[in-house]
Amino acid sequence: MKFKFLLALLTITVAGSATAQVKFEDAIKFRQSGYGFMAWNMQRIKANVEGAYNKEEVIKAANVIQAIANSGMGALYVPGSDKGTGWEATRAKPAIFTDKEGVGKVAMAFNREANEMAKVAATGDAAAVKEQLGKLGGTCKGCHDDFKAKK
Amino acid sequence: MKFKFLLALLTITVAGSATAQVKFEDAIKFRQSGYGFMAWNMQRIKANVEGAYNKEEVIKAANVIQAIANSGMGALYVPGSDKGTGWEATRAKPAIFTDKEGVGKVAMAFNREANEMAKVAATGDAAAVKEQLGKLGGTCKGCHDDFKAKK
Repeated sequence: MKFKFLLALLTITVAGSATAQVKFEDAIKFRQSGYGFMAWNMQRIKANVEGAYNKEEVIKAANVIQAIANSGMGALYVPGSDKGTGWEATRAKPAIFTDKEGVGKVAMAFNREANEMAKVAATGDAAAVKEQLGKLGGTCKGCHDDFKAKK
Repeated sequence: MKFKFLLALLTITVAGSATAQVKFEDAIKFRQSGYGFMAWNMQRIKANVEGAYNKEEVIKAANVIQAIANSGMGALYVPGSDKGTGWEATRAKPAIFTDKEGVGKVAMAFNREANEMAKVAATGDAAAVKEQLGKLGGTCKGCHDDFKAKK
């Protein structure tokens, strides 16, 4: 009886760990997906301001970046997911889980410039989009410098 | 002289292939990222309609799905990218590059239900969101059944 209880407890513990493990991997994969899809859309906006400008394509790309920036993906930085592999090994630096003030600052800057990009894209003003792309890209770099390990 | 010309030609050809190769890999990685990030947001909506309902979280998730659905990611199905590895080996079936009518049908259904989901989410009506999630999820499945190989 006692053994059965212990066995049941062990099973629950193991099952619990397995669930947590899957959750970390998923969380890492989901955040890598978010950044990966934004990368495509940043590239598209860059190609548009450097080449033939297509207003509708830039609006679509800016809307994606805005929606992802406002998605609340900070929730994907589950405590314990500073190590682990999603699509690839995470490069999140430990500081992203501890430096709340610093993370808040870069996250707010990114949200602000992503929202502004969507507004500027809607005007179809290629020069203004180019300028805003620089500001938006700066907030990506600012976060990467502090919180993302180099390959 | 002739040798130098041939060498230059060879270099250009190799460089050209390398560029194309990178592009295929990126295209596959970008589309996998788009679907991966949508998967997170589908899960969030599911968790909300099955548990405690948070109107704002569902709106954010629905807005992401809508923006990605309308991003024109069909452009990422570059001819030749039916084989290749982004984050992982692509599971796009060859038919996705040839069956334009079939692809158009599933893509339009997905866009329609994603746009509708954003509208329904804005109302905060959990029961309606649950029903719409079923319709939206059905369009994901419809495409996967026809155009995505199983693992």
